[in-house]
Amino acid sequence: MMTEIETSSRSTTPLQGHLARVSEMLARHRLVEKLAHDEAHQHQDVVDSLVHRQNLAELQREIDKLHPADVAHILDALPPEDRLSVWHLVKADRDGEILLEVSDSVRESLLADMDAPEILAAAEQLDADELADLAEDLPDDVVHELMQRLDAPEREQLRSAMSYEEDQVGAIMDFEMITIREDVTLEVVLRYLRFMKEIPEQTDKLFVVNSENVLTGVLPLKWLLVNDPARMVSEVMAVDANTFHPDEDVVETAQAFERYDLISAPVVDVDGRLIGRLTIEAMVDVIREESDAETLSRGGLREDEDIFASVWKSLRNRWTWLAINLVTAFIASRVIGLFEGSIEKLVALAALMPIVAGIGGNSGNQTITMIVRALALGQVSPSSAKRLLRKEVGVAVLNGLIWGGVIGLVAWLLYGSAALGAVMTAAMTLNLLLAALMGVLIPMTLIRFDRDPAMGASVMITALTDSGGFFIFLGLATLFLI
Amino acid sequence: MMTEIETSSRSTTPLQGHLARVSEMLARHRLVEKLAHDEAHQHQDVVDSLVHRQNLAELQREIDKLHPADVAHILDALPPEDRLSVWHLVKADRDGEILLEVSDSVRESLLADMDAPEILAAAEQLDADELADLAEDLPDDVVHELMQRLDAPEREQLRSAMSYEEDQVGAIMDFEMITIREDVTLEVVLRYLRFMKEIPEQTDKLFVVNSENVLTGVLPLKWLLVNDPARMVSEVMAVDANTFHPDEDVVETAQAFERYDLISAPVVDVDGRLIGRLTIEAMVDVIREESDAETLSRGGLREDEDIFASVWKSLRNRWTWLAINLVTAFIASRVIGLFEGSIEKLVALAALMPIVAGIGGNSGNQTITMIVRALALGQVSPSSAKRLLRKEVGVAVLNGLIWGGVIGLVAWLLYGSAALGAVMTAAMTLNLLLAALMGVLIPMTLIRFDRDPAMGASVMITALTDSGGFFIFLGLATLFLI
Repeated sequence: MMTEIETSSRSTTPLQGHLARVSEMLARHRLVEKLAHDEAHQHQDVVDSLVHRQNLAELQREIDKLHPADVAHILDALPPEDRLSVWHLVKADRDGEILLEVSDSVRESLLADMDAPEILAAAEQLDADELADLAEDLPDDVVHELMQRLDAPEREQLRSAMSYEEDQVGAIMDFEMITIREDVTLEVVLRYLRFMKEIPEQTDKLFVVNSENVLTGVLPLKWLLVNDPARMVSEVMAVDANTFHPDEDVVETAQAFERYDLISAPVVDVDGRLIGRLTIEAMVDVIREESDAETLSRGGLREDEDIFASVWKSLRNRWTWLAINLVTAFIASRVIGLFEGSIEKLVALAALMPIVAGIGGNSGNQTITMIVRALALGQVSPSSAKRLLRKEVGVAVLNGLIWGGVIGLVAWLLYGSAALGAVMTAAMTLNLLLAALMGVLIPMTLIRFDRDPAMGASVMITALTDSGGFFIFLGLATLFLI
Repeated sequence: MMTEIETSSRSTTPLQGHLARVSEMLARHRLVEKLAHDEAHQHQDVVDSLVHRQNLAELQREIDKLHPADVAHILDALPPEDRLSVWHLVKADRDGEILLEVSDSVRESLLADMDAPEILAAAEQLDADELADLAEDLPDDVVHELMQRLDAPEREQLRSAMSYEEDQVGAIMDFEMITIREDVTLEVVLRYLRFMKEIPEQTDKLFVVNSENVLTGVLPLKWLLVNDPARMVSEVMAVDANTFHPDEDVVETAQAFERYDLISAPVVDVDGRLIGRLTIEAMVDVIREESDAETLSRGGLREDEDIFASVWKSLRNRWTWLAINLVTAFIASRVIGLFEGSIEKLVALAALMPIVAGIGGNSGNQTITMIVRALALGQVSPSSAKRLLRKEVGVAVLNGLIWGGVIGLVAWLLYGSAALGAVMTAAMTLNLLLAALMGVLIPMTLIRFDRDPAMGASVMITALTDSGGFFIFLGLATLFLI
C-alpha cells in the first residue's frame, strides 16, 4: 500500500500529493493507536504513546506547512474520524481561515466539534465580512458574544453584511479598501501607502472620496505608478468606475466582472457614499457556486453533499427529487393504465412506448438547456421568443420525421405491421413537437413569474414528454390499430 | 411597442437596456427600409435614404459608446440579419476585440461575412496570444498572411501559443509582462515603470529574472509600493511564486488560482525560464467554459448553439445525442420484447414498469452527480472508493425499501394483488441497488481510463437503469406471478 501511495503521489498534482501524504501519516497513526490498544496489557504504554506523539507531531508539521486552502481541501476529502484528527492538529490561529475555505457541509461538522471559546478564538482572526459568512452556521449565543467583542465600526459592518440576502452584493462585499482624497498629489498618495505598510489583497485601485465619503473616482495602482508623482489625484483618477449597489444581484455582478475584466470595484449606497468593496476573488466564488448549484439541481440533489455524509443525511438530501419523480412516474403509469385494453390486444405497444417517451424527453431537454442558457446570458428578448419557437418546431418536425421514420421502419420490420410503423413515426413526431413547444414555453413562463428556469425545468419537461408520449402513442394506436 | 421597450429598459440592468435600445433602433431602421422599398416608385428615394442614413448614424453613435464586451453581447443576442447590420457599423479598429468576446458560433458567422483584408485589419489590433485564439477559425491563407505581417518575436509567440492543445496552459498564457532584475533598488523599478508609461492589464506583480531569463522571484506591486524605495528588489521579492508550466492542464490551473486567490502567475519552461503569464481573466474564462461545457453535455448538446442558428445547424448539434439515446431506448425496448408473453398475461406490468426504470435512473443520476463532483474536486482517493460504495448501497437499499414499499402498496391497492406489490418493491430495491453500484463504478472506471466522467456518465447510467429496471421487474414478475 505504501508503494502505491508513493507512485501515485509522484504522478499527480502537488495538491493530491499533500492528501496522499496526510492519509499515509493518518494510516500509520491509526496503526500505532491500534498497537497501543492491543499491547496495553504488556505495559508498553509509555513507549507507544511516545511513538504516537511523534507521529502526530510529524503530521502537524506537515499541516503547518500547507496553505489554509490546501488544509481545507484535505479536510473536505477525509472521512469524518480522520477529518477531526487533522482538525485538532490545526493551530488555533488558522482555524478561522480554514473554516472559510471548507465546503458548507464540512464546516458544519467541524463547528459541531468545537466549543464556544474555540469558535470565538477562531472568529477573532477574521474580518467583519468573513465573520458574516460564518455567522449563519454559528449558535446564536456565540454570535451574540462575538458582537460584544467587536469594536463599534466592525460591529456595524458585521450587522450590515448580515442584513443582506445571500445573493445580494451587500452579503459578499468586504471592507478592506484604501480611500484617498482628490486634492493631493500622487507623491502624497505614495507616501501614505508607505506609511500604511500594508495594502489589502486584491487591491488594484484606490477609491477617491470627498469629505462626505461620496465616491468621486478611482485611482488604479498602475496609473499611480506610471504618472508623474507631482500630478494631482484629480487629474489622474477615472470618474466613471464600475460601481455597484449593495442590493444588486451577485450573479449579474459577477457577469459584469467577467465582461469588463475587473479585479475590484466599489460598492456605494443610494447617495453615492462608499460602503464596501467587491473583489474578483469573491466573484470567482459566485461563479463557481452558481455552476455548482446548477450541477447539483440538474443531478437531483438538493444541496452540496459531504461525500462521507451519513446515509441518513444523504437520504434527506435526495428525497425531495425522488419524491417528485415518483409522482411524475406514477402519473405516466396511470396514463398507460388508460390504455391497458389496447396493450392487451397488441403487446408490441408496451415494448415500443418507452422509445417515444424517451426520445421526447431527450429532445425536450436539449431545447430547454439551450433556452435556459440563452436566458441566463440575457440573449432572449420577448421579440425573439417567437422566432425561437419557430426554429425549435422546425427542428422537432425534421427530427421526428427522420428518427421517427427510422424507428417506424424498424418497428414495421420487427412486428410486420406497416400501420404500426406509421403510428410510431407519427407519435414520435408529435411528441418531439410537444417537447419543442414545452422546451421553449416552460423556461419562458418560469422567468415571467420570476422563477429560476434552471431549477425544475428539466423535471417538468421529462414528466410532460413521458406522460404525453405514452398518451400520444397509445392514443394513436388505439384509434388506428385496435 | 415603443412604450413596452422603454418600460422594460428602465427596470432592467444597463446591459439589457443597451440591447433594448439597439433593437428599437434596428426596428426603426427596418421600417424605414421597408418604406423606402414600398415607395420607391414615388421617387422619394433621396429623402428616404437620408432618413435611413440618419438612423444608421444614430445607431453607430450608440454602438461606439459601448464597451467591446457589450457590443459582443448585443451581437450574440441579435438574429442573423440584425447582427450583420450592427457588425457593419462597428468601427474597423474595434473588430478584433469584439471578435474575441463573442461566442464561438457567432464569431464563425461574423468571420464568414468578412473578406481577407477586413480580417487582416481586425487582426492587426490584437496581441499574439489573442490572435492564437482567433487563428483556428480563420482561413489558412489569412493565417499565413498574418504570420508574414508579424515581427519575429510575435511570430514566435503566435506559433508557440498555437502549438498547445486548447486545454493546456500554453494556449491561454499571454506575453504582456514586466520583467525586472533583482540587483536594482525599488527606486529604479519605480522610475522604470514611469518610463514605460503603461503597465499591462491584470498586472499585480512584476517578474524578476536573471540574465538567462530564468525566473528568480516575483515582486508584487503592493510590496513595491509599501517598501522603502532604497531597498533592493532581491530583499523584497518573494522566491516561491506559484509558477506553472505550459503543458499543465488549464482546469487544474484555474483551481489553483481560485485556491490561492491569484491575479496573475508566471509560466516557465522546464529550465525555469519565463515564457509567459497567466491572468485571472483567462482563468475566469476557463471556469466559465468548463461549467458551460458540462451544462451543454448534460443537456445533450454537442456544443454551444447560436440561438438563431439555422434548423440544419441545430440538427447537427443535437443528432449525436439523439442517436445514442435512440440506440439505448431501442435496447430497452428489446428487453421488454423478451417478456411480451408475460405482459400479455398481466397487462398491469406494462403500466408499472416505467416507474421502476424512471426512479432507478433518477437515483443513479444523483449518485453519479455527487461522485463526478467529488472526483473533479480531487476528494476521492482509491481508499475512499470502498467506503463510498458502502454508503451508496445503504442509501439505495433504504430508498428501495421505503419508496419501493410505498409504490408496492399503491400497486397492491390499484391491482388488488399483494404479490404484484411485493414484486414491485423488490424490483425497485434491486434497480436502485444497480443504480448505486453503477453510479459509483462508472465514473471511477472512466477516470481510471483517463476519460472525463462528466461526459456520458449520465447517459450510461440511464441506459443501464432503464434496461436493467425493465429486466429486473419483468423477470421477477415472470418468475413469481405468471
